[in-house]
Amino acid sequence: LEEQRHVADRFVALDWGTTNRRAWLVADGAVLRETRDGEGVASVDPGGFPSAAARAAAALGAEGVPMLCAGMAGSNRGWADAGYVPAPATLADLAAAAIRPAEGVAILPGVSMVDGARGDVMRGEEVQLLGAAAAGLVPDDALLCQPGTHAKWARVSGGAILDFRTAMTGELFALLRAHALIGHTMREGQAEAGTAFEEGVDASADGDLVVQLFGVRPASLLGLRPEADAASYVSGLLIGADCRARVRPGDAVWLVAEPGLGDLYAAALARLRAEARIVSSRDAFLAGITRLRELMA
Amino acid sequence: LEEQRHVADRFVALDWGTTNRRAWLVADGAVLRETRDGEGVASVDPGGFPSAAARAAAALGAEGVPMLCAGMAGSNRGWADAGYVPAPATLADLAAAAIRPAEGVAILPGVSMVDGARGDVMRGEEVQLLGAAAAGLVPDDALLCQPGTHAKWARVSGGAILDFRTAMTGELFALLRAHALIGHTMREGQAEAGTAFEEGVDASADGDLVVQLFGVRPASLLGLRPEADAASYVSGLLIGADCRARVRPGDAVWLVAEPGLGDLYAAALARLRAEARIVSSRDAFLAGITRLRELMA
Repeated sequence: LEEQRHVADRFVALDWGTTNRRAWLVADGAVLRETRDGEGVASVDPGGFPSAAARAAAALGAEGVPMLCAGMAGSNRGWADAGYVPAPATLADLAAAAIRPAEGVAILPGVSMVDGARGDVMRGEEVQLLGAAAAGLVPDDALLCQPGTHAKWARVSGGAILDFRTAMTGELFALLRAHALIGHTMREGQAEAGTAFEEGVDASADGDLVVQLFGVRPASLLGLRPEADAASYVSGLLIGADCRARVRPGDAVWLVAEPGLGDLYAAALARLRAEARIVSSRDAFLAGITRLRELMA
Repeated sequence: LEEQRHVADRFVALDWGTTNRRAWLVADGAVLRETRDGEGVASVDPGGFPSAAARAAAALGAEGVPMLCAGMAGSNRGWADAGYVPAPATLADLAAAAIRPAEGVAILPGVSMVDGARGDVMRGEEVQLLGAAAAGLVPDDALLCQPGTHAKWARVSGGAILDFRTAMTGELFALLRAHALIGHTMREGQAEAGTAFEEGVDASADGDLVVQLFGVRPASLLGLRPEADAASYVSGLLIGADCRARVRPGDAVWLVAEPGLGDLYAAALARLRAEARIVSSRDAFLAGITRLRELMA
C-alpha cells in the first residue's frame, strides 16, 4: 500500500520558458532527478508539444508520469493557452485554473493585473514567488524581486501576490549593447559590480535616463570614463532606476534569483541603503510546484 | 568693382551629416541654389572627402567656390577632426577654431561640455542654435530644442550656448520598435499626436520608464489599449520623459526643427502646459553659417 502511494505522488515538474526549460522528477516532495535543455517554447512547432514533453519525461526516466507545467507552455504561443488569473492570486487560485490539454498533463495559468491604464502579466514567475512564501523562505509580507531580462517586482502577503510590476531592465541593457550608438562603447567591457556600476546607480537619481544614456559616448570621447567601464555604468543606471522606483532606504528586498544573477541587484540595493537577501529560485520553484501538485490531487 | 565684391562673397555652405548632407550656394547672404543628397560621412571612404566635396559643389554649379562645412565632416570619422570648443561657445569661438584641411575648405568644430561626471557633445547643431539667436529668430535668452534621433536641448543666452544636454529619445524609440519584444506591438501603427500619445506623456509623470515600456504588450494582451496605438503611446512616454526633465508649466521652448519633425514635441509640451514655438532649422542654419563666413573673412 505504501509503495502504491509513492507511485501516485510522483510527478514531473516542468518550468518551460521561451528559450530553455528545466524539468524535475519529484516524489513526495523530494527531487529524484533533474534536467535542463534548450527546447524552449519558441523552438517547438504547434502540434509538437506532446512529443517535446515526452522527451523531457524520457530524459528523467519518467515516461508516463503525470506532468505539471509552468511558464510559457501556457501562453498563446505554447502548448495551450492557460490564460491568467487576476491578482491578488494564491497557489490555490493557480491550481483551480490549471488546464489539461492531454491525459496526465496539467498547465498552470499566469497572473495578470490591471491598475488603471497600466496592465501587467507574469507567467512562470508566480510559482517561484508563491513557492518562496509557502516554504517560508521569505516573511509573510515581503517585497520580492526576480532580476532578469524582464525583472519582476511583487508584493507577496498572506500567501498571495497582491501587486506586481515588470521592468524591461535586462532587455533594455541587451538592446542598447547590441544595437545602440553607445553599444560600441558598451561592448568594451562586462557589466560588473564596482565603482563604475555605483556611479551609474548614483547618476540614476536625477531620473533623466534618455540623457544619461546618450552621455556614455561623450564621457568616453572627453576622457571622463574609460570605455571598459561603460557596460558597468549603464547597468548601474538601468538597475539603479529600476530599484529607485520601488525601494526606499531601509526597505528589505528578497531577490529570487539563480546564483550570480542577483549580484548586480544586490549591489544596487546596497548602494541605495536597502537590504537585499537572496533566495534560491530553484528552491522556490520546487516548493511552489510541489504545493500546487498537492492542491490539484 | 561691385561685381568683384560679389564673387568674393560667394561660398558653399555644407551641412554634412552622418547619413545625409545639404548644400547651399550663398552669395551676400542670399541662397542662389541648394541641393540635398545621401552622401553622408558614413558613406565616404577615408581619402574620399575631397572628391565627395567636389561633387556637392558641382551639383550647385559652384566648382572651386570656397566651402564651409559643419557637422560630421569635422568628426574623427569625417574629413578631418576639428575637435570641440567647450561651452559656453559663441559663433566667434567656432570661427576661430575652424580647421582648413584643403585649399578653400574650412571645417567647423563641434561644442563640448563637462558638468561633473557628465559630458556631452554636439556637432552641427551649434550652427543652427547660434544662427537662430544671431538672426533674432529666438529671444536673447531662450531654451532651444532640436528634436530628432538625438534631441539637443540648449540654453542660448547673449549669443552663446551656455549649457546643453542630448537625449537619445529618437534613437531609443527606433531601437524599441525594431528590436524589443514590444516592437511587434509598436509596428502595428505610426507615432502621431493624439489621445494615445497624450496618455504616454501623462504616464511618463511617474518616472518609471522601464516598467511603463514593458507594460505596452500586457496592455494589448489585456485589451487596455489597441495595438495600433502602441507606437503613439511609446512616443508619448519617451518624449514626455524627455520634456518633463527640462521643462516646467509656463516655460517657453523654441523648437528648431524641419516642418513636421517638431509636431510631436510641440504636442508633448502643450500637454505639459509649456509654450512651444517652431523655428525653421533651415533658416537657422543659413543664418548661422553666413555669420560664420563673415567672421572668418
